[in-house]
Amino acid sequence: MKGQPIFIHEVATRDGFQNEAQFVDTDDKIALVDRLSKCGYAKIEVTSFTSPKAIPALRDAEAVMHQIKRHEGVIYTVLVPNIRGAERALSCGVDEVNLVMSVSESHNRTNLRMSREQSFAQLRDVISVVNRTEVAINVSLSTAMGCPMEGDIAKQEVLAWMQRFADLGVHGVTLCDTTGMAFPSQVRALCQAACARFPALELTLHFHNTRGMALANTLAALKAGIDRFDASLGGLGGCPYAPGATGNVCTEELVHMLELDGYNTSVNLPDLLAASALLPRLIGHDVPSQLLKAGRRMDLHPMPSLASDGRPEQRAFETGV
Amino acid sequence: MKGQPIFIHEVATRDGFQNEAQFVDTDDKIALVDRLSKCGYAKIEVTSFTSPKAIPALRDAEAVMHQIKRHEGVIYTVLVPNIRGAERALSCGVDEVNLVMSVSESHNRTNLRMSREQSFAQLRDVISVVNRTEVAINVSLSTAMGCPMEGDIAKQEVLAWMQRFADLGVHGVTLCDTTGMAFPSQVRALCQAACARFPALELTLHFHNTRGMALANTLAALKAGIDRFDASLGGLGGCPYAPGATGNVCTEELVHMLELDGYNTSVNLPDLLAASALLPRLIGHDVPSQLLKAGRRMDLHPMPSLASDGRPEQRAFETGV
Repeated sequence: MKGQPIFIHEVATRDGFQNEAQFVDTDDKIALVDRLSKCGYAKIEVTSFTSPKAIPALRDAEAVMHQIKRHEGVIYTVLVPNIRGAERALSCGVDEVNLVMSVSESHNRTNLRMSREQSFAQLRDVISVVNRTEVAINVSLSTAMGCPMEGDIAKQEVLAWMQRFADLGVHGVTLCDTTGMAFPSQVRALCQAACARFPALELTLHFHNTRGMALANTLAALKAGIDRFDASLGGLGGCPYAPGATGNVCTEELVHMLELDGYNTSVNLPDLLAASALLPRLIGHDVPSQLLKAGRRMDLHPMPSLASDGRPEQRAFETGV
Repeated sequence: MKGQPIFIHEVATRDGFQNEAQFVDTDDKIALVDRLSKCGYAKIEVTSFTSPKAIPALRDAEAVMHQIKRHEGVIYTVLVPNIRGAERALSCGVDEVNLVMSVSESHNRTNLRMSREQSFAQLRDVISVVNRTEVAINVSLSTAMGCPMEGDIAKQEVLAWMQRFADLGVHGVTLCDTTGMAFPSQVRALCQAACARFPALELTLHFHNTRGMALANTLAALKAGIDRFDASLGGLGGCPYAPGATGNVCTEELVHMLELDGYNTSVNLPDLLAASALLPRLIGHDVPSQLLKAGRRMDLHPMPSLASDGRPEQRAFETGV
């Protein structure tokens, strides 16, 4: 019997790679996306059509989008900041554009160098262009569970921004815990309110594991009725406020937990782990994924060999508990 | 208004230090325990009265126990493997002894070099000695949520071992996820069964974060009525099966989440973080704690300074979401 379906969105090639100092070769990006396309994701956020000067790591957005092999059933989405980006994305035949602004004024000014109203006006123009096509529109709202400069953002404020975009006809909204400030009871309350008020919107949660709570927050969101999650292979994706801290919730750890808990993510975990194992070569350093180091819970180990006295030869495990 | 009380047990100086290659000076151990004694813990597992040959890292157990300053309200417990260890512990005036065996035959043979029945007979002798004193007895059952060699351990098997120790009059049992194999729905089912069957036993949960699920499992245990948790400062404590994987659930991350969710742990988080920051010097390497790197969620940051055009001077945060 299959469990409740959960939809997993991979963001490593966008939210992950944009933070990497080492440029990932275009061919490697394409090969990775092609590999991920076969893993069972509902959606892959392939790249970002931002200015190559602002994000040189993703300066090859067109080349990547044109050369990947689309897999039936997978939605290929890209981040788009403005009209210029939307036009570039549309010319590549994307399935969805993902727009972004912050519900925190300070964070929006710092991250996007505009007021929230300026961002909204710009995104409204993008939406009116994209609405003339068949391409779907999602809006990612940053700092929905807290701003690193302002602190808590009132739930009503988050809901009000969702309402403004819902009124423009977007099909989905992603609530982003941009710097890992979310905690379970907060997540549950926000998700319950969002699900109740916007039953027709496709809602996605986007967690970062900055303070170790990403999977606990996922449980809280599930409890509130959320069934779509962004996640990043290997746990890639950083946060400029927390150097050394882990990034986005790790896809393989999310899928591992969900499948153990009886949900049906449709994602093939061994394929995912094999793909994650390729990341260190691409980015030049280790990834935060614990699961990649430890293996799945049922990847069992042999008993150590026994010495002639019947005791394990190997050193005792130091009475670990 | 104070939330529901949750009792936090610190295990870093035992479960953490025993896995460290670098010997932590006795004076440093004593200073750390004295510092932790003022943080608000319900219990501190100070050290282990095992053979100095088996665990050289804790060869100074007597010296540490004799020289720490006991803090009223804190229970000072120690790990004890056998009669000899119990006698050494009792001579130091411990408040509690913590006995350990595995509910998995393979893990018990590998870790303790005995069958489970041999372990049980030995611990029964320890219990009969300690029962003549006022010292409390807790039993930690390893691999209660899975054995890295055998896989799943049936819930009935775990409950049967709890029953055998309850019948001997121990006051508490700790269910240990020794190698991080637990997942939320399993934890909830096991904890519900244990709470229902042993209402008079003090139950503690001991999670490892090997596969990233420690805080999610904590939520599941709370839901089932558990209010006591072992945790390790900085996330110290390893697992021989997963080199490089994180260790025990990190105390500061556990307390941070619980307090945000409205529970009352009695633990002072800033003091805890200050203590955790001392660990790298003591053990010679970085600790897994993410919270130590990222800071608490409400440790806010200033806005970047603005250039003359009113835009932040600092590089935009690369449209992070």
